[in-house]
This record gives sequence, structure tokens and C-alpha cells, in this order.
Amino acid sequence: MSRFFSDKYAYLDPYTPGEQPRDRRYIKLNTNESPFPVSDLAVQEASAAFERLNLYSDPECTGLVKTAAEVFGLAENELLFTNGSDEILNFAFMAFCDDLHPAAFPDIAYGFYPVFAEINNLPYVEIPLKEDFSVDITDYFDIGKTIFLANPNAPTGIALKRAEIEQILIRNPENVVVIDEAYVDFGAESCIPLIHEYDNLLVVQTFSKSRSMAGARLGFGAGNAELIRDLRKIKYSTNPYNINSMTMAAGIGALKDREYFEKNCSIIADNRAYTTEKLKELGFSVTDSSANFIFVRHPDIGGKELYLELKERGILIRHLSKPEISDYNRITIGKLEDMETLIRTIKELLEEKR
Amino acid sequence: MSRFFSDKYAYLDPYTPGEQPRDRRYIKLNTNESPFPVSDLAVQEASAAFERLNLYSDPECTGLVKTAAEVFGLAENELLFTNGSDEILNFAFMAFCDDLHPAAFPDIAYGFYPVFAEINNLPYVEIPLKEDFSVDITDYFDIGKTIFLANPNAPTGIALKRAEIEQILIRNPENVVVIDEAYVDFGAESCIPLIHEYDNLLVVQTFSKSRSMAGARLGFGAGNAELIRDLRKIKYSTNPYNINSMTMAAGIGALKDREYFEKNCSIIADNRAYTTEKLKELGFSVTDSSANFIFVRHPDIGGKELYLELKERGILIRHLSKPEISDYNRITIGKLEDMETLIRTIKELLEEKR
Repeated sequence: MSRFFSDKYAYLDPYTPGEQPRDRRYIKLNTNESPFPVSDLAVQEASAAFERLNLYSDPECTGLVKTAAEVFGLAENELLFTNGSDEILNFAFMAFCDDLHPAAFPDIAYGFYPVFAEINNLPYVEIPLKEDFSVDITDYFDIGKTIFLANPNAPTGIALKRAEIEQILIRNPENVVVIDEAYVDFGAESCIPLIHEYDNLLVVQTFSKSRSMAGARLGFGAGNAELIRDLRKIKYSTNPYNINSMTMAAGIGALKDREYFEKNCSIIADNRAYTTEKLKELGFSVTDSSANFIFVRHPDIGGKELYLELKERGILIRHLSKPEISDYNRITIGKLEDMETLIRTIKELLEEKR
Repeated sequence: MSRFFSDKYAYLDPYTPGEQPRDRRYIKLNTNESPFPVSDLAVQEASAAFERLNLYSDPECTGLVKTAAEVFGLAENELLFTNGSDEILNFAFMAFCDDLHPAAFPDIAYGFYPVFAEINNLPYVEIPLKEDFSVDITDYFDIGKTIFLANPNAPTGIALKRAEIEQILIRNPENVVVIDEAYVDFGAESCIPLIHEYDNLLVVQTFSKSRSMAGARLGFGAGNAELIRDLRKIKYSTNPYNINSMTMAAGIGALKDREYFEKNCSIIADNRAYTTEKLKELGFSVTDSSANFIFVRHPDIGGKELYLELKERGILIRHLSKPEISDYNRITIGKLEDMETLIRTIKELLEEKR
């Protein structure tokens, strides 16, 4: 770092995004992207935005908010859109955590949570998952902290039921509970219907996965109007024009194309079931995932080794070096033919090892 | 605010963007946008990004950085792109200010600087401009603070010469000096050529004005590799995928279309000279602007009154309520026909008042 860098960040350990190599073509099963292109409607809407690109984008995201409010059954002031869901998560750490309200999240979860806490100089605790990687909801009862839970959780894919999250909400009336639903559309229960019942609930979603818009950067927070007003205050104090006009327009198109969205989610769920079954046949243990990825381990091959062997064979999966999960790999669910190639390649690999 | 909002933001006063009314069509001379559409090359490149929108955007912005490095004569590690220049400014406040390094900027400048200081809980001082609205560079000598100067300044349009900024750099070797060049392409001297001489210089630019991309959200910081590394650390700790693929591609197209960029800047400079002359003929005092706006005042009509009268007649200009400048208005320079309409309308207005 330079001699000018503020001491307050001396120990900052930034987030490491999944690798995006450019040296060759891979079957990319490492960053939980959708294998399907964005909806044609999204492309149409985004193209129409070109002619007004010289004008600032609408900081209120009026059209997008209106469309989303209809789709999710919310009022317009219960939504705030951001430059990907990372931005709304950062805003939530800023707005709802401080020395009196430390953050709390599972020790195995989205790897960005501790980084958000660090960059904002916030205290936080990491609560261990159970041995089967599930969340023990009682660990979160009456803890006097701002809670962040990915549901389904990453990198495990395991989801809590809405009724379980409701218990956490009830047992923390004085603290905000943030439910990060990046992967919810692939098979878990969204907590959006609880927003009108619990004023301490913030739900976060993204267009990166189920709506095939990772490259467009669009996420949002949904919560009662007062929580959203707080988060708006952060947005207007950091980056009021945080969403560009093309992405805003694409978001409207993607929301309108409900059929395409539902079809794609359903294909991913089918391919997940297929891949899970085949990998189990090959001796893998596979978590019960509700997401567009699975979390797997094989008794005969280490996590890092499997990752490297597959990479050499043109398939990228994600290996996380955290000791507790270093035997595992996270595999994104893609198109059926890619999952077939994966399974065939793994089968060969295991046979070679024997 | 909600009962959950952290006390640390209790007094936060967010930035107020210029109005973007939707009730009727206005001649928009209020937010310093370009009146020209984005380059066709930018549209072509952005369109090509649609097919990969399901994949994450490149967090390293490889292609864009390569192109920009060539255009600006810099190394690739001397550049960092952000979601508009507001984001890099916020990063600079975060990285280079703290209790031991308060921020310093003119009392009349981009209205977001104090907000960035507030949101990051940073001490800051506002240094008065001279009576003619120019910066007294000696005010910034040896001040032991992180300096933020818009050059040309907003809302005055008045620019310092590069050699004057160099004096400030020399007299503050232990502090970062951030030169915010949002409007530099319309007639001021950029400090980018000083980057290799001064390790305490960060230059900030935007694609919003001279490259007609306000709606696409693209800005960047340029400085020596160590400063940029610090800022990257902030980016990777808040929003690694901060630039979407469409904007990244459009940025490459806009940089490649040098001829279009230069032609547009030159037209704006001509229209600024024309508008300045005509308004002076009508009795206005007009600052000597190097930007795509002018800062004007008339002895017979208040700033707020002129703003309201013009708005009623379908022309939007920007009135800032800050007491020291409330007699003034900031007028964006648009197409010649729009400036002619403006002048004709003001002339009628002044005649009616007589």
C-alpha cells in the first residue's frame, strides 16, 4: 500500500472474486452464473436506452421500481435498487450495524460478509454452522446483533424454511435481520411475504443468477418503508446515480418476461437433481441444495485436487480454501450437456485414480 | 429514519441531484449533460455485450483499462474505473482521509464533497474562495490535509492552470491531492501528465460530460500505481463487479471515437463563448468558464426568480440555494439552438420586468 493509505484499513483483506480466466474456453461452473442468455425483452429495453445515454439515469429508478413492486406485491417505497446486491448488502452493514449493533452471520456463508464488516470498521461474530452445514436457528435467538443470513446459504445451497426465519425475526424484534436471497428462485421460500409483518426484515435479491443478468449488475433490497428510507439515505450519500440506464431498462424487461424466468429456474432445478443423483452414484456426498449450485465432496479425492484436475480438463468449478470446507467444491448447475460432460470427466478421473 | 438506523448517521444530509422532471419536456440546461448522443462506436460495443450479460462483468475491466492506458499515456496499473466518478471520489475519501488527515476543499465546489466526508465520518474543512470565486492556491500550501479540488471548479467553471496545481502538489508532499477533472475536456489543462512526477496526485475523470455517457455511469481515477492499488483495495472490499459489461464496452467505443469526442468538445466551447457574449450584452456577469456550463448573475433579477421564470417557460437551469451563491445560476451549455432559445427567452423576461 502507499504511504498515504489510511491506517484504518491496514488489515483489510478484500474479497476474492471467482476466477474469470481468459487464456482458454472453459465450461464455467465456478461463479454461479446462469447458462442462459438474458431475456430478449431485456435486450430490447436496454437497446432503447442507448439514445438517452447522454442524460443521467433516473436516480429513483421509477419505471423499474414500479414494475418490481407489481411483480413482488410490494409498495414502491418498500424497494431500493442497487449496483448488484453487493451494494445493498454493504449499505445494510453501514446503516444497521455499529459498535452497539455488531453483525452476526454463519462462519460458512457468503465470503463477502466479513469484508463488509471490516471495510466499515464494524464488530462482527461468525456463528458456526452445525456439522451437517445447516443453520441452527436457535443460535440466532435474542442475540442482540444485526443478522445476515444467505438463504439458501452459500456455498452449501442449504435453505431454511420461511417459518424458521420467522422464528428468528420474532426473537430479534430490536435488530434488523437481513435475508440474502441471491439463490432463492431455484427452490427456496422467499421471505418477501413477511415484509408487511416484520419491520425488522430486509430481504436482498439479485438479477445475477435466476434472471441471467450477472454482467448487468442489478440487485435490490425489499423491506418496510422506514428501513428502505434509511438505505436510500446511504445511497444518496455515496452514489445517487448508482444504476445505469441500460441496466435499469434490462431489469424491467427481465421482470416482464416471467415465463422465460420460470422456465430457466425449472431447468436448473431439474439439472441439479440429475447432477446430484449422478454424483452420488459416483460416491460423492452432496448437500441438499435449493440453489443453482451444489456442494460436493468425494472420499477419494481432495477438494483442491478435483478442482485442479477438472481445470486442466477444461471445466472450472470453485474451490474455497477455508480449512473447514477445503475438502469440498462448489459446482454451479449449468446446461444439461455441460453437466453430462462434468460427470463423464469426473468418472474418468476417478477411474484413473484407482 | 427507522429505529434501527445507526446513530452515526443521525445528522447525515444526503446529496440532492439536479431535478429530472417527467411532467413535461424541458430544454435541459441544469445537470451539465452533453446535448449530443453517445458515439455510434459506443453503441456498437455495448450492443455486443448483450450476449454475455449472463456472465459476470470483468472486475479488472481489462479491455477498457488497456484502451484508456493508450489514450491517456499511462500504464494499466495507473488507472481504476468506477461506477461514475462519484464512486472513485468516495473511495478517495475513504482511502486517504482519517482523523490525522482531514479533507480540505473550497467552500464553493462540487456539493458532494462534504457528503462524502460525512458518510465516512471524516473531519473536513471548507476553504473560502476569493471574492471573484477563484481558488487562492496559497490557501492550500502546507495544510497537512487531503485536498480535493474540482478543476475546472463547479459551479463556477473557473479553472486553475496546471502549473498552479503543481505548486499545490509540491507544497503537500505528505498528502494526497485529488484533482476532479469532470469538466476538464471543455477547455482546461489536465493534470494527467503530472502523474509520473508526483506520487501524491490522483486525477479523477468521468465519461458523463464530454463523452455523452451520463446515463452509462463511468468514471476513473488515474494516479501512480501505489495510490491505485489502495483504491483497488477499497473497490474489492465494497463492490468488485462495480462496472457492468455494457458500460465497459461503451467506454471502449467512446474512447476509440476520438474525432467525435473532440468535435463535440469544440462545439460546446464555441457555444459557451457565444452564450457568454450574448448574456453579457444583456447585462449579466458571467464567470470565465472552462467547463460545459457558465455561472451567471444579473443585477435586476434574483437567481431563484430567474430559475423559476425559465422553468415556467420550459427551460431548466440550476439554482443552488447556498446563501453565498443564491444570486447566481449555473447554466449548462447545450446545442446552439437551445442557447439561442435561452437568450431570446431571457431577453423577453428582462423586457417584461422593465
